[in-house]
Amino acid sequence: MDRLRIFVDFAVSPEVLELLQAGTKGHQLVFPKTPVASVLAKAERDPQFATVDIAFGQPEPEAIAEAGQLKWIHISTSSITRYDNPQFRALMAKRKIPVTNSASVYNEACAVHALSFMVAQARKLPQALKTRAASGTKAWKDIRGSSGTLRGETVLILGYGAIGKRLAELLRPFDMKVTAYRRKPRGDEGVPVITQEQLPGALAGAEHIVNILPDSAATQHFFDAVRFAMCKPGAIFYNIGRGTTVNQDALLEALRSERIGAAWLDVTEPEPLPDEHPLRKEPNCFITPHVAGGHKGENKTLVRHFLKNFERFVRGEPLLDRIM
Amino acid sequence: MDRLRIFVDFAVSPEVLELLQAGTKGHQLVFPKTPVASVLAKAERDPQFATVDIAFGQPEPEAIAEAGQLKWIHISTSSITRYDNPQFRALMAKRKIPVTNSASVYNEACAVHALSFMVAQARKLPQALKTRAASGTKAWKDIRGSSGTLRGETVLILGYGAIGKRLAELLRPFDMKVTAYRRKPRGDEGVPVITQEQLPGALAGAEHIVNILPDSAATQHFFDAVRFAMCKPGAIFYNIGRGTTVNQDALLEALRSERIGAAWLDVTEPEPLPDEHPLRKEPNCFITPHVAGGHKGENKTLVRHFLKNFERFVRGEPLLDRIM
Repeated sequence: MDRLRIFVDFAVSPEVLELLQAGTKGHQLVFPKTPVASVLAKAERDPQFATVDIAFGQPEPEAIAEAGQLKWIHISTSSITRYDNPQFRALMAKRKIPVTNSASVYNEACAVHALSFMVAQARKLPQALKTRAASGTKAWKDIRGSSGTLRGETVLILGYGAIGKRLAELLRPFDMKVTAYRRKPRGDEGVPVITQEQLPGALAGAEHIVNILPDSAATQHFFDAVRFAMCKPGAIFYNIGRGTTVNQDALLEALRSERIGAAWLDVTEPEPLPDEHPLRKEPNCFITPHVAGGHKGENKTLVRHFLKNFERFVRGEPLLDRIM
Repeated sequence: MDRLRIFVDFAVSPEVLELLQAGTKGHQLVFPKTPVASVLAKAERDPQFATVDIAFGQPEPEAIAEAGQLKWIHISTSSITRYDNPQFRALMAKRKIPVTNSASVYNEACAVHALSFMVAQARKLPQALKTRAASGTKAWKDIRGSSGTLRGETVLILGYGAIGKRLAELLRPFDMKVTAYRRKPRGDEGVPVITQEQLPGALAGAEHIVNILPDSAATQHFFDAVRFAMCKPGAIFYNIGRGTTVNQDALLEALRSERIGAAWLDVTEPEPLPDEHPLRKEPNCFITPHVAGGHKGENKTLVRHFLKNFERFVRGEPLLDRIM
């Protein structure tokens, strides 16, 4: 195969660069003039982009439209929000450009993050780590008496891709009743999948609602006042998908009315949520700053995943995590 | 069987009392003159105790020695510290008094509590819930880059009874390397069990050290400066057993020298640990106030467990959770 030009639009450490260079020997890496700060930041528009064969990172859809040489796009995140629309899909289909993402890189960490929320809530960790209550006091009894084990409880997972599947695996020893909600059921979920019509009943029955919905026109403020009002009183709400899928005013109201017993959010709108936002002051709202997918050696895992796909691309084999 | 007199020395709510009365119909419940505040508090000495057939709670060993009618003791905790000595065991053997405890009641919650510590540490929850760091900042990258998934890591569980076994079950989906240390291996552990001679090597290899050792003469300050010095640098130390098994000065030193990367303690010595104790100020020391076994409806579970054993006792069947 000819020498390929690969545009890499995320910040790489010297160690990760070495890995990338070794795995793409004989080909050419092209870096943007202004390096980007993080995998979640917006890539700079770069004139070199129009001349590359492969894009690895988060290229702008407008730039892609103008890049006539592009043969493959590998997105460095799990989210594909910027690309997940009919026009872009049509363009990729027309130009026969395969699009892959890095879902596999973040699934495991995201699923463990969701589990950490669930067990921290069950064991009342935020409260228990703060108090110095002595044995036998009311404060102490309150924590012991409101702690749980998750065992036998019901959990509804919305957006049942690789993260949801892995979360269901992690929850297996808890003997929970796991149900999934998914736009397009494939039949390989391994847990009962509900339809849109069954959603109100599922929300009414779930003690735990895990929102992993992606951001799209269809999921915009999916959790609004109407859907929160369908929830079982006291249900725990978790969001490790995208902040845009939740109407935060409705969530605030649901927390205040105790319809929702507690909310654990790794994503918000905007990010970070401003200090003065009322959700920051809600005692049962717990927020982490979009770190669910993070893990030691993340960029290395990201590059290794790309290189695995690069080898497949060079050999003309089917690509991993192909989304278009 | 004759009408049995059952001494109940822990505080029961009206609802729990009803449960207890219904399950012991035809027999007589005897309550102490001064009710005790919690299952972990010391029971009051009571003259009625000398006249009962069954003790349910935490009777004092001295009172037991003087109670000539006693036919069975059911301890309302998982810990048996006060009874676990050769003299007491010999006395029970001589008088043919079976002793049972409530291990089954607390196992599940204790195991989930230990897991909550492990995943909260892996996901850096205490730090992530506090920060409002924006995507791409150093603080944000630090959290993402130091978070983990537990996958493939090594955990050593010391004191491998029902709690440890359940924890190992909960950890199964993480594909961790689980090893157990147990005074008397029974061969039914389901994970590799190491001997005292193998302990230094196991400590040197473990990324996670879960201490569930009971309190006894043999475990007093089991984790001292020598044993902490054997640990893998940066290992995470968890204690959900008893505070007395750890030399807290040695733990403090191990945290300060970063030999131990973080400590998660549900038990301390004394409890609660005073506000001015230096472990309270250690940034990587996380303390919950002896709540690991707590769960919604705990006293009900406790009474139901006792009643299950009471039925067995009346029928002359083998007792559950028999420890002597």
